[in-house]
Amino acid sequence: MNKQLTLSKRPVGLPEKDTWTLQESEMPTIKEGEVLVRQDYISLDPAMRGWMNDTKSYIPPVGIGEVMRAGSVGEVIESKHPDYVAGDFLSGWGGVQQYVATNAKGWYKVEPTLAPLPTYIGTLGMPGMTAYFGILEVAKIKEGDVVLVSGAAGAVGSVVGQIAKIKGCHVVGIAGGPDKCAYLKEIGFDGAIDYKNENVREGLKRECPKGIDVYFDNVGGEILDHALAKLRMHGRIAICGAISQYNNTSIKGPSNYLSLLVNRGTMQGFVVMDYAKQYSEAAMQMGMWMMEGKLKSKEAVFEGIENFHDTFLRLFNGDKMGKLVLKVSE
Amino acid sequence: MNKQLTLSKRPVGLPEKDTWTLQESEMPTIKEGEVLVRQDYISLDPAMRGWMNDTKSYIPPVGIGEVMRAGSVGEVIESKHPDYVAGDFLSGWGGVQQYVATNAKGWYKVEPTLAPLPTYIGTLGMPGMTAYFGILEVAKIKEGDVVLVSGAAGAVGSVVGQIAKIKGCHVVGIAGGPDKCAYLKEIGFDGAIDYKNENVREGLKRECPKGIDVYFDNVGGEILDHALAKLRMHGRIAICGAISQYNNTSIKGPSNYLSLLVNRGTMQGFVVMDYAKQYSEAAMQMGMWMMEGKLKSKEAVFEGIENFHDTFLRLFNGDKMGKLVLKVSE
Repeated sequence: MNKQLTLSKRPVGLPEKDTWTLQESEMPTIKEGEVLVRQDYISLDPAMRGWMNDTKSYIPPVGIGEVMRAGSVGEVIESKHPDYVAGDFLSGWGGVQQYVATNAKGWYKVEPTLAPLPTYIGTLGMPGMTAYFGILEVAKIKEGDVVLVSGAAGAVGSVVGQIAKIKGCHVVGIAGGPDKCAYLKEIGFDGAIDYKNENVREGLKRECPKGIDVYFDNVGGEILDHALAKLRMHGRIAICGAISQYNNTSIKGPSNYLSLLVNRGTMQGFVVMDYAKQYSEAAMQMGMWMMEGKLKSKEAVFEGIENFHDTFLRLFNGDKMGKLVLKVSE
Repeated sequence: MNKQLTLSKRPVGLPEKDTWTLQESEMPTIKEGEVLVRQDYISLDPAMRGWMNDTKSYIPPVGIGEVMRAGSVGEVIESKHPDYVAGDFLSGWGGVQQYVATNAKGWYKVEPTLAPLPTYIGTLGMPGMTAYFGILEVAKIKEGDVVLVSGAAGAVGSVVGQIAKIKGCHVVGIAGGPDKCAYLKEIGFDGAIDYKNENVREGLKRECPKGIDVYFDNVGGEILDHALAKLRMHGRIAICGAISQYNNTSIKGPSNYLSLLVNRGTMQGFVVMDYAKQYSEAAMQMGMWMMEGKLKSKEAVFEGIENFHDTFLRLFNGDKMGKLVLKVSE
């Protein structure tokens, strides 16, 4: 049997347990040109919250009754696909379920001997790509920039900060709690601000006394306003997400946005999928950095598809460190 | 005697009459290297409201007791300057006063036979430059773009829209009242939305059914949010000003800013002074467009330095059309 999690209703605010239904269905069968994948790990990402809203966005919302969309990595256990054989490991959009039959469009092969499987949906997967293209192509960092990143201990933020360090920037991270802030120092951040235990404005004064050139925003809300207030001339803000706002019914806009005028600043949004053609190149570069010990990857792995809801909430209550992953194979 | 308007206190909200003091002082005398200018016209601009606040901005605030900063145009009546003789007309930062002695740094010569004097502080002055560089260099319009501009009947907005038309864009303006909207059509705008008499969201649906590529923002507030909601893929927003917010003690941030993410949009602020080296080139181009009849200039001229306060308020209550100018010579 195949355990699947389907969307049963559109949440208002923070999703409750009955937002999804766990159901068992027959093991899927494959047609010519398809593979059957046993999914080992499911990626849990803040963006998933957005996909549950019935609003125009960069991809259509998950439909009611459909399997919840999610990135995943697993092993091919049967293949009628010309490119793959049983025993291959693939990563793709498998959804929150234990098995999936797919024509593998948009999936790619991964090598479990080079990196642990969860890393392929973390630093070498979507979050890593988001960090890579966001900080290099959108924020266009250059040596000597003061770079601020929020959600800094998360899957995207931790990679953003490390790439900025590799590129010779001064990097300050904002994260919640002393453990996360200690982790930022451990992976080479120059400074850390604990938004749960200190005033962010004061923290910014201490860590970025001359202001910031680049802010990589994962959180939105008040922290975005604090960053705007510290923007230096020609500063760039890359809007990656706004996790502080995803469960709000009305979004708080940045009231300091006129800092963009005063400082000739730019605020730019982006969606990682636009860079799909460059993924392999980026993965190769990041794999190299990992092997050289310049880029560290951390995953918080939880177990059991039946624990999806509790695990999902950790995205929003901050109760995890690094990339949040759920093991769904048994 | 020289009538001068000095800043007597920092206003909270909309400036009241006692924000400034009208005083008479001795006629200034000039030193070697200076000119004495009889100022004919003073430029009234929304940005002046910002210069009255004691906050870090792109230029220092006007000090209490200082002559109120303003652009101006007038005639040299005495010169000890190597480049100018009596009878020359100059434009510069003369402030709200009838006469000024200056070393003429930052001033430039204008030719009253080619265009009326008020045009030199309007379409051929700072507002025109703001429009020119904002729409061409910041918003980077290209042929076929749908361009939306707010404050469209104003000194900057009316020029923005006309330049966008010259460049082959579809141009829609937002302005207050039927007279202003009729004026927009008269100078070639494709569509007009009267924010005082219709729902802006509905107006945008009618005039920009496929969304907008470029929004040139002079007003901020709710209209910025409506524009964000209509942004097309890779849309650009040029933040020129936020006149709806200048007299507010707290600024309304754009709550739809995540449209930048969904649509891979960019919001960029700018200050015209950064383009000073290209002013003459732009003035030449705009002068040519004016002679060809492609660019029309409108000034609302009021009279008397003692009417400064009432005239200034017209910037905010919308009671003027085109560039607001005060004649201060008697």
